[in-house]
Amino acid sequence: MPEPARSRAQRRADTLAKLRRDVDLWVASADERGNAYLVPLSYYWDGSALTIATPRSSRTAVNLVRARWARVALGPTRDVVIVEGPVEAIPIGTDPRLEDAHARATGFDPRTLAEEYVYLRIAPRSIQAWREANELAGRQLMRDGEWLD
Amino acid sequence: MPEPARSRAQRRADTLAKLRRDVDLWVASADERGNAYLVPLSYYWDGSALTIATPRSSRTAVNLVRARWARVALGPTRDVVIVEGPVEAIPIGTDPRLEDAHARATGFDPRTLAEEYVYLRIAPRSIQAWREANELAGRQLMRDGEWLD
Repeated sequence: MPEPARSRAQRRADTLAKLRRDVDLWVASADERGNAYLVPLSYYWDGSALTIATPRSSRTAVNLVRARWARVALGPTRDVVIVEGPVEAIPIGTDPRLEDAHARATGFDPRTLAEEYVYLRIAPRSIQAWREANELAGRQLMRDGEWLD
Repeated sequence: MPEPARSRAQRRADTLAKLRRDVDLWVASADERGNAYLVPLSYYWDGSALTIATPRSSRTAVNLVRARWARVALGPTRDVVIVEGPVEAIPIGTDPRLEDAHARATGFDPRTLAEEYVYLRIAPRSIQAWREANELAGRQLMRDGEWLD
């Protein structure tokens, strides 16, 4: 038996806490021919956006820079947060405060690596959150960048 | 400190056990314009393929039927199994044994629902498995449908 469905206010509080607490998320992307890709990556949440870093020539970076839009998910599958929003590509060396914060949050610093990385900053426009099937109704917490209610 | 990297044989054994034991996975898909999508779904593993079920008109079903190829991931993000392979769409009522087994494994039976579902069977052609960064080397366990080594 699942727990009773949470209120929207509770889900919003839980979601913000989870964004602060978690380290990894799943990143879906696709090329211009519709070939989908999926990888887990670490992220830094600054209170208003997610920042990930991945090699500039990786499929994920190429796909997200092309699409300028990302759909990412925090798990596990029974405590889901799905975030969608536009992607801003930030070359290494552009924003040292962000880069320091990313290194602290994720435990790795792409500035120290031989391969060229790019930071990808995703500003949420849509956020959904649910645990079990009884929470599918009411899962939309943010739409068009605005928290609902 | 992560555990030492597992051998390929150990990863294969762990991966098969995880495919049998887990219930949910992440499904990436995309439309023909390259808009990526991502949802968690429950699955049934029959020893050689994954079967998921989702509404026939859902973005995931439409995308996967179009692409005829799926990339799915079992989590959590520090115990990853990524499976890619062709997708076979199986209409409801086609394979009662598979449908019974799917219902037992996932805890839901799309045959009982008002909305029309479709089963999507994914036969692995590529399998990767890793836990921490020290296991990224050697993560490829299956290629072109053949287990390596």
